[in-house]
Amino acid sequence: MYQIGLEKDELDTPALLIDLDLMEENISTMADFFRGKEAALRAHTKVHRTPILAHKQMEAGAKGVCCQKVGEAEVMVASGIRDVMVTNEIVAPAKIRRLVSLAKHADISVPVDDASNAKALARAVKGEGVELSVLVDIHMGSGRCGVEPGEPALRLARSIQELKGLRLRGLMGFEGHVSAMEPREKRRVEIERLEGLLIETKELMERDGMEVPEVSTGSTGTYDVSGRIPGVTEVQAGTYILMDANYHQHVPEFGCALSVLSTVISRPSSDRAITDAGRMSISTPRGTPLVKGMDGLEVVGVHAENTILRVEGHADAAIGDKIEIIPPYLDGTVKLHERFHGIRNGRVEAAWEIIGRDSSN
Amino acid sequence: MYQIGLEKDELDTPALLIDLDLMEENISTMADFFRGKEAALRAHTKVHRTPILAHKQMEAGAKGVCCQKVGEAEVMVASGIRDVMVTNEIVAPAKIRRLVSLAKHADISVPVDDASNAKALARAVKGEGVELSVLVDIHMGSGRCGVEPGEPALRLARSIQELKGLRLRGLMGFEGHVSAMEPREKRRVEIERLEGLLIETKELMERDGMEVPEVSTGSTGTYDVSGRIPGVTEVQAGTYILMDANYHQHVPEFGCALSVLSTVISRPSSDRAITDAGRMSISTPRGTPLVKGMDGLEVVGVHAENTILRVEGHADAAIGDKIEIIPPYLDGTVKLHERFHGIRNGRVEAAWEIIGRDSSN
Repeated sequence: MYQIGLEKDELDTPALLIDLDLMEENISTMADFFRGKEAALRAHTKVHRTPILAHKQMEAGAKGVCCQKVGEAEVMVASGIRDVMVTNEIVAPAKIRRLVSLAKHADISVPVDDASNAKALARAVKGEGVELSVLVDIHMGSGRCGVEPGEPALRLARSIQELKGLRLRGLMGFEGHVSAMEPREKRRVEIERLEGLLIETKELMERDGMEVPEVSTGSTGTYDVSGRIPGVTEVQAGTYILMDANYHQHVPEFGCALSVLSTVISRPSSDRAITDAGRMSISTPRGTPLVKGMDGLEVVGVHAENTILRVEGHADAAIGDKIEIIPPYLDGTVKLHERFHGIRNGRVEAAWEIIGRDSSN
Repeated sequence: MYQIGLEKDELDTPALLIDLDLMEENISTMADFFRGKEAALRAHTKVHRTPILAHKQMEAGAKGVCCQKVGEAEVMVASGIRDVMVTNEIVAPAKIRRLVSLAKHADISVPVDDASNAKALARAVKGEGVELSVLVDIHMGSGRCGVEPGEPALRLARSIQELKGLRLRGLMGFEGHVSAMEPREKRRVEIERLEGLLIETKELMERDGMEVPEVSTGSTGTYDVSGRIPGVTEVQAGTYILMDANYHQHVPEFGCALSVLSTVISRPSSDRAITDAGRMSISTPRGTPLVKGMDGLEVVGVHAENTILRVEGHADAAIGDKIEIIPPYLDGTVKLHERFHGIRNGRVEAAWEIIGRDSSN
């Protein structure tokens, strides 16, 4: 990549940057937490979709990765990762075929919340010489997928056990709706209540004679609680590696390592500056972008290809100046770019293509 | 493209669809409006970033295109379009060099709101054997770029006239902040007031002895007013070609031709369905996606890779069913995809790569 070795401010804008020191600190902070615990980290690659970052998480101790889509899992398996969970139900026949093909090259697990879907998965592996690991997806109040905990989960687990070709690996529960609950103590109480439902369901299944080796749950916002609950075996966390302005408010122990480099293109008035990076470079479904490392500049508007900054009297933002913006939404911002530029000591150390960018299928 | 000829519901999901009949109606509706008028249409390609769509707009009568970025202009020039306006100030030296190179292959115009920027443009064309057309960018209250109308604009225009290599082509004014003003009659009054400032500035410049051949302004939300104002020579409209759920409320004469095909992956309860297309396929900085052509289904939540639908009793949304979603934000949704699938009579007639997708630089 021709960008490597350039000074940061020599990059064409908009450009997606990673502060490599901060990212490595984030990886270490999370790895330190899990050292010696019963629960392990399963790194969620949906946030970066980039193999080298997944490998860095694995090297630091993550037991495997999880992906939102089959396409993303294909990218990670192709990069050499052997333990990959897909965290959405896979129902389309063509996608089930891809999942089975992938299971010939890695350990693939997938959540199930419907008995017919389980049967379709079992039919697809028949004669293929592989097993698919499935997790009963437990609805924990997020309003998304999942069967209710307790008896409904038990009934689904029994029906899965009867199917050849599927290995019931345990339970998955996603409590994304509490990841950002404030204050953090209230979040802790709510997570413990929800994970309690998961653990009770696990025990119900065990009393029914099943083995339930895996309970997979959690997120960056809940890792420190989920990762301490007896019976939880893995925590799915992704955002911690790069963070965003929004999530950082809720887990400030991880630094904002991602930013978008932009250029001031207009100073129409003394209190207003316009940059060349807007919603096509910075995803803003919620929250407001922050200006990184400069006082007196505040984001007051984001348009398709421009961000509007309010400039206080003393602040410096001349036409042509470079401004770094911390996006409010990590996953969405990464999706808008072709590559990360890894920055250290003011220079471009790495240019990493976002190989899984278009793996939403 | 292997997709061509497939039935729509055979497409892998998420997939970006264009209803070709509706799109062609939109193109005709806009072309009919401009037939015989003093003002012409300049099609804004930022919404689709795809050459064949720009060419369809030109064939229907658009005089040229406008683009938000140099990269987008490069894509359009490479596709054979000869009249291209960039609608943002271009200030970075590397980007100015690209603009000058582009001017050797097409008529390129660019807005200016700063005398130093004008000088930098003039320096860059020196000895290159080309001219750059510049428009004085007039701030019309949107809070973005632009010099104030009246005397400040006149002063900037005079300084541009003194520079060799720049051809002062006229004025540009963007009134995006009123494009969606309701009721429409109030919008009309406000547009006429704002365009009045543009026309007064044009007349001020003419009294000063300048020629002002071009006054370029407007948008899909204002075309029917801007396009009738004496002195306005071109209207910049883009969204009308494909539309989105949000803008359609304000200019209902253009139909929603864009949708995202998705699959129901979970029916966790009788009143809830979960699809496989979320914010990574449907841009939602504002407004809510709509379900296309199906009663009893309503979008109640959008997550990264899922949309949550409320299902009324009679509605049909089984696991595996295909659902079309009309995005609330056209430009952002296009940016998330690799290609359009053009649909007619239920089949894929065209698969068009979004060639300018990554032209935000």
